Amino acid sequence: MGTDAAPVPEVEGAILAARERLADVVLVGPESTLRRELTRHGGPGRHIEIVHASESVTMADAAAKSFRQKRDSSLRVSARLVSEGKADGMVSAGNTGAVMTTAKIVLGALHGVDRPALAAVFPTSKGKAAVLLDVGANVDCKPHHLAQFAIMGEIYYRAIFGAERPRVGLLSIGSENHKGNELTREAFALMKDLPVHFAGNVEGRDLYNGRVDVIVCDGFIGNVALKISEGLIETVSSLLKDSLSSNLSSKVGYVLSRKAFQHFKKRVDYSEYGGAPLLGVRGVCLIAHGSSNAKAIKNAVRVAAEFVNGRLNEKIEGELASAVTLGSRP
Amino acid sequence: MGTDAAPVPEVEGAILAARERLADVVLVGPESTLRRELTRHGGPGRHIEIVHASESVTMADAAAKSFRQKRDSSLRVSARLVSEGKADGMVSAGNTGAVMTTAKIVLGALHGVDRPALAAVFPTSKGKAAVLLDVGANVDCKPHHLAQFAIMGEIYYRAIFGAERPRVGLLSIGSENHKGNELTREAFALMKDLPVHFAGNVEGRDLYNGRVDVIVCDGFIGNVALKISEGLIETVSSLLKDSLSSNLSSKVGYVLSRKAFQHFKKRVDYSEYGGAPLLGVRGVCLIAHGSSNAKAIKNAVRVAAEFVNGRLNEKIEGELASAVTLGSRP
Repeated sequence: MGTDAAPVPEVEGAILAARERLADVVLVGPESTLRRELTRHGGPGRHIEIVHASESVTMADAAAKSFRQKRDSSLRVSARLVSEGKADGMVSAGNTGAVMTTAKIVLGALHGVDRPALAAVFPTSKGKAAVLLDVGANVDCKPHHLAQFAIMGEIYYRAIFGAERPRVGLLSIGSENHKGNELTREAFALMKDLPVHFAGNVEGRDLYNGRVDVIVCDGFIGNVALKISEGLIETVSSLLKDSLSSNLSSKVGYVLSRKAFQHFKKRVDYSEYGGAPLLGVRGVCLIAHGSSNAKAIKNAVRVAAEFVNGRLNEKIEGELASAVTLGSRP
Repeated sequence: MGTDAAPVPEVEGAILAARERLADVVLVGPESTLRRELTRHGGPGRHIEIVHASESVTMADAAAKSFRQKRDSSLRVSARLVSEGKADGMVSAGNTGAVMTTAKIVLGALHGVDRPALAAVFPTSKGKAAVLLDVGANVDCKPHHLAQFAIMGEIYYRAIFGAERPRVGLLSIGSENHKGNELTREAFALMKDLPVHFAGNVEGRDLYNGRVDVIVCDGFIGNVALKISEGLIETVSSLLKDSLSSNLSSKVGYVLSRKAFQHFKKRVDYSEYGGAPLLGVRGVCLIAHGSSNAKAIKNAVRVAAEFVNGRLNEKIEGELASAVTLGSRP
């Protein structure tokens, strides 16, 4: 029940996913609403079932409060299905804070993971995807948290984007090894010994140029980075639109180039990537954008299934166990 | 000698500034080169003089090393002129790290300023300018540093952009008061008692939407923020260009809308703003972009003159002295 137009994109996305045999889908929410929506598309079929949940978490709900008070929310019921082994993973396009809180509490963290991390997936100018983590507000991270993020992000990138040896960078303020703040300098020392292709420090400008595939940072930085990007894209679009409607020839130009704009928007459209994974929880949790359409939901289901089938959590626990230096415990 | 095309934009900018009586300009660099360039424009005139410097700092020079080794660089000679009272301020479009290092060492900090801060000035979607500080790599800031940045940024904004009561925001990961990391939560407590219009926490998306006029953050965050923005603008431009040349109708569209693009580029062109001030040093130091043209240099001279005439440093020292809680000293 998470998208802005819920449950329409969810139901349609589930149908697409089931039709393409990506996964068997359990739709969680008010049963009568979901059943009606499914009927519009010709009924549930063999690969879709419904589990009833009487409440929904909204964008206005505070994460912790909604967790305590809405015990029968579609979000919490979904997480319970995963923790009870009745589902392998969950996909939600709802309130990001609430999804993270719920997943962390109900699913719990993998062995060796101190802090589950939210990974943003976005396109670069080279056409391939990049992953930035943490963007889920793990503030005041310690160096070993960043090293854990590196391992989780690298395994995710390898499995989902089929790269054999993704390059992992540490977000800093200069590419030289000694550049950075206390946190990044200590994290650098840990990361160079990890079993990943560590490309060293990268700068803000490297986020979108494809120089590295996985970029690791404290959750405060990651959140600021993501929101600056969103804000800047909005500002550029609105300034460009103003400029393009300022006189007749540019209006004509705009109409003629509209197809190109649409093509451009499609290239930067992250519905292709299936949302942001919350890495490090027991089970699988994908957070899709609130404005997700059916295709985005379908892709999130696809990625969740690949996550399960690729046994990513086993790999994460395995690599963290062998990288003994990372534990905060002795 | 700092711009990519030095000394052409510097000399032409100085001439424009002198012609508009913005300031008397001292050009610092190799005398014969500067004299030749001035002669092309009809000689120095009454408001321009030359001070010889035999060396130049390049973009490839490391900041600290160039300071030690190039004792007769145009940069260091300029700073010396300011520290000796022979000039009121300096403008450089050179290596930002080297300019900051040189200015901090040669000019020193104002009374009450623990760390001079570099302030980036950029346009917002509302058309007015915004100031973000620190972007000069003051990493691992303490809360009272951020509070000092707030005071300096507010005084600068008021004087240079003529706003009576600019809104000052603290860059964080949510607009609620308690959101943030250790640093911002403590800084928030200090900032709400400052003699500025404190608008509370702002998010990354607020950088470019004009919600606040002055945005304060740790220098690590500020640097990442700025470089992400630069990188994203480059990526968007290149993707857009690709899309616009992909077929004939959009090519025609592009030609017709070129004027609009130019108009757009002009609106986001920060040469209007006269570069980034290094706030908190004794004297005035403006750092312009390496790609500055004559107009940008002229505007930097204008802003430097306004800085001097507005007695901004006196105001900064005065406000910091009255905000006694800010000192790191007892």
